Amino acid sequence: MAKITKVSPLAPASFPELPAIEGVKFATAAAGVKYEARTDVMLASLCEGAAVAGVFTRSSTRSAAVLDCQSKIGGDASGGAAILVNSGNSNAFTGAVGQASVDAISSATAAALGLEQSRVFTSSTGVIGERLPHGKIVDALGGLAGSLSETSISDAAKAIMTTDTFPKGASASYDVAGKTVNIAGIAKGSGMIAPDMATMLVYLFTDVAISQADLQAVLSELTDSTFNSITVDSDTSTSDTLLLCATGKSGVAADQHDIAFKDALRSVMLDLAHQVVRDGEGATKFIEIRVTGAKSNADARVHALSIANSPLVKTAIAGEDPNWGRIVMAIGKSGAYADRDKLSIMFGSVLVAEKGWVNPDYREEDAAALMKEQEILITVDLGLEQGSSTVWTCDLTHGYIEINADYRS
Amino acid sequence: MAKITKVSPLAPASFPELPAIEGVKFATAAAGVKYEARTDVMLASLCEGAAVAGVFTRSSTRSAAVLDCQSKIGGDASGGAAILVNSGNSNAFTGAVGQASVDAISSATAAALGLEQSRVFTSSTGVIGERLPHGKIVDALGGLAGSLSETSISDAAKAIMTTDTFPKGASASYDVAGKTVNIAGIAKGSGMIAPDMATMLVYLFTDVAISQADLQAVLSELTDSTFNSITVDSDTSTSDTLLLCATGKSGVAADQHDIAFKDALRSVMLDLAHQVVRDGEGATKFIEIRVTGAKSNADARVHALSIANSPLVKTAIAGEDPNWGRIVMAIGKSGAYADRDKLSIMFGSVLVAEKGWVNPDYREEDAAALMKEQEILITVDLGLEQGSSTVWTCDLTHGYIEINADYRS
Repeated sequence: MAKITKVSPLAPASFPELPAIEGVKFATAAAGVKYEARTDVMLASLCEGAAVAGVFTRSSTRSAAVLDCQSKIGGDASGGAAILVNSGNSNAFTGAVGQASVDAISSATAAALGLEQSRVFTSSTGVIGERLPHGKIVDALGGLAGSLSETSISDAAKAIMTTDTFPKGASASYDVAGKTVNIAGIAKGSGMIAPDMATMLVYLFTDVAISQADLQAVLSELTDSTFNSITVDSDTSTSDTLLLCATGKSGVAADQHDIAFKDALRSVMLDLAHQVVRDGEGATKFIEIRVTGAKSNADARVHALSIANSPLVKTAIAGEDPNWGRIVMAIGKSGAYADRDKLSIMFGSVLVAEKGWVNPDYREEDAAALMKEQEILITVDLGLEQGSSTVWTCDLTHGYIEINADYRS
Repeated sequence: MAKITKVSPLAPASFPELPAIEGVKFATAAAGVKYEARTDVMLASLCEGAAVAGVFTRSSTRSAAVLDCQSKIGGDASGGAAILVNSGNSNAFTGAVGQASVDAISSATAAALGLEQSRVFTSSTGVIGERLPHGKIVDALGGLAGSLSETSISDAAKAIMTTDTFPKGASASYDVAGKTVNIAGIAKGSGMIAPDMATMLVYLFTDVAISQADLQAVLSELTDSTFNSITVDSDTSTSDTLLLCATGKSGVAADQHDIAFKDALRSVMLDLAHQVVRDGEGATKFIEIRVTGAKSNADARVHALSIANSPLVKTAIAGEDPNWGRIVMAIGKSGAYADRDKLSIMFGSVLVAEKGWVNPDYREEDAAALMKEQEILITVDLGLEQGSSTVWTCDLTHGYIEINADYRS
């Protein structure tokens, strides 16, 4: 475990007040999977008929828990359901015993709550390749089932942390004909740490009424522009999991006010995604990269991620250096189409370069002043067609090297 | 300019003795393009009939000099030729005035040596987006033309350096029926530095007799397994240029299928490519990554580069941590096919993982001892088909952050 315990300078001032979601209860326990003197297991129980949708890492070496979740999503939703998460051990690359651990935890959770095992979704996050001591989690299930509460979502946010420097939560609500729909979510990550490989986990809960198929469709659509548009270091975890649960207890059907539901859900997802970037390992700058004028949205995304993942762009921003040549470099290497003589680059509201060369009115001191801010906006217009994409990232600092190289397992 | 002047710990003990190549002469000058008190321009003159082949960055924002070289390669080779290189300014992203600078330098070089302008190849390396003060270079050409010598290739290696911590040279030779074929080469890079973006430049010279078309074919083929198989930080420069010149003066003919010629040329290219990695910014470890058993060579290369470019793999090695879970992660995220339960991973001769889990006989202390070495070998066998690829990289350290973030333009 790294000894970095200082809270990220980009952290929100405090954990937000989150609304209770009717039909969802939480409990946490300190099972001692790896960490001492802190909670490391979270149980969420969902009422009968709750729909559960999910998106997962596409890693070909994904964990046993991810594979198990993927096989269960979309199954029969008539009974209740549960989510069981442990931190400290990812149960990834653990062969057949990994699946056995998932089965042991799922069946014990199902027994404790009177559910079908096919309705228990598990996640594990932490070190890769070590056998998960699932007995410690199974032993904690009685206590967990007996202490479920609608109001302990903030405790849940803490129990799923690994190397996060702050717990992450967000919520939104909207009214329909005197009834209120609530959405609340928690997340962990996306730190990566020696020797652990922490990962992104996100759990979202709403009391809207919606079918599983519709819930999955809206989740998949919104993930592209939120969680799939952030990057800290271009490394993809073996455990990334995002689950969205809808209890229907608000009495409001989502398709009644589709726009309101999607807007509210997207705001929660984007808020949590930004919090993950703000807790990026060693981060001191929160960076938004907007690419417009590309041949297609896909091309714009390739350019935006090439900039966001470039070590030279990220270190320049860490050094508060408006080194726009590195942005030119990142566009050039991306593989997506660009015409050198049509593109323009802005830092915040400062036009740096256009038409293949530096803006004649550009003064480096204007850009240098902007680079001292904690939030940096880089806009690239390719001057071609209408494709656009926005991604978020953080800078690359000595803190990242400290966390990932200076401490041994 | 960064203040990092310490020579890389991975540098060779000394610059090698390089053979003179008949038909090739060198001269250097201190033109004051950017640096003070050092040489920054190199001129190489090539005898009549010399063939010149080249490979270049594929960046869509490549420099004016690269675009100009690409337009000239493959042209009429009956007259002599010249290569003119400056360090300190890359003349990249400088719009129409960039091409005007290339024309001014090319025509002055042609006039000084009595050549066609179409036979003058130029390279520029250094800061992006600043106008090249080409007048300083033009003014130096008289002195350069008057001081050409067959024996000053080591001076040439020094004049093209930007943020390199040591000059890079390599040679090879072979005999055919009492005649000797010599190959000598120099390279710079691939450092990247605030505010400069240094780049890879390579110049190879041989006295073999070969057509331009055959020379280009063998160069393109060998580049894939040498210079295109190294990475320091995944960022691609706007100026990468590799030129190979053959004078024919040995009296020995080579065609593109000549095994002795290809072996000798490949050894020079690989030696220089490895020296570039050994001068990687902040590097303390030289890392070879061999991937075998992939579905295809292309798939193996995707996996190998995913491992080589992973910040988490590179920081683990910097920390001498045998964190093999990060290699599993890098394979998983690469996008190329892998079957978790068939792959095996070795550090040096230590079998770490196989069949989807850690090797039961693995002892971390064995791998930890290997990680203390300066040269690290990582072998991944995917257990599928016969595809293979080897790439070379260095670790990611505080030195990289220092060079690229801590110093301002």
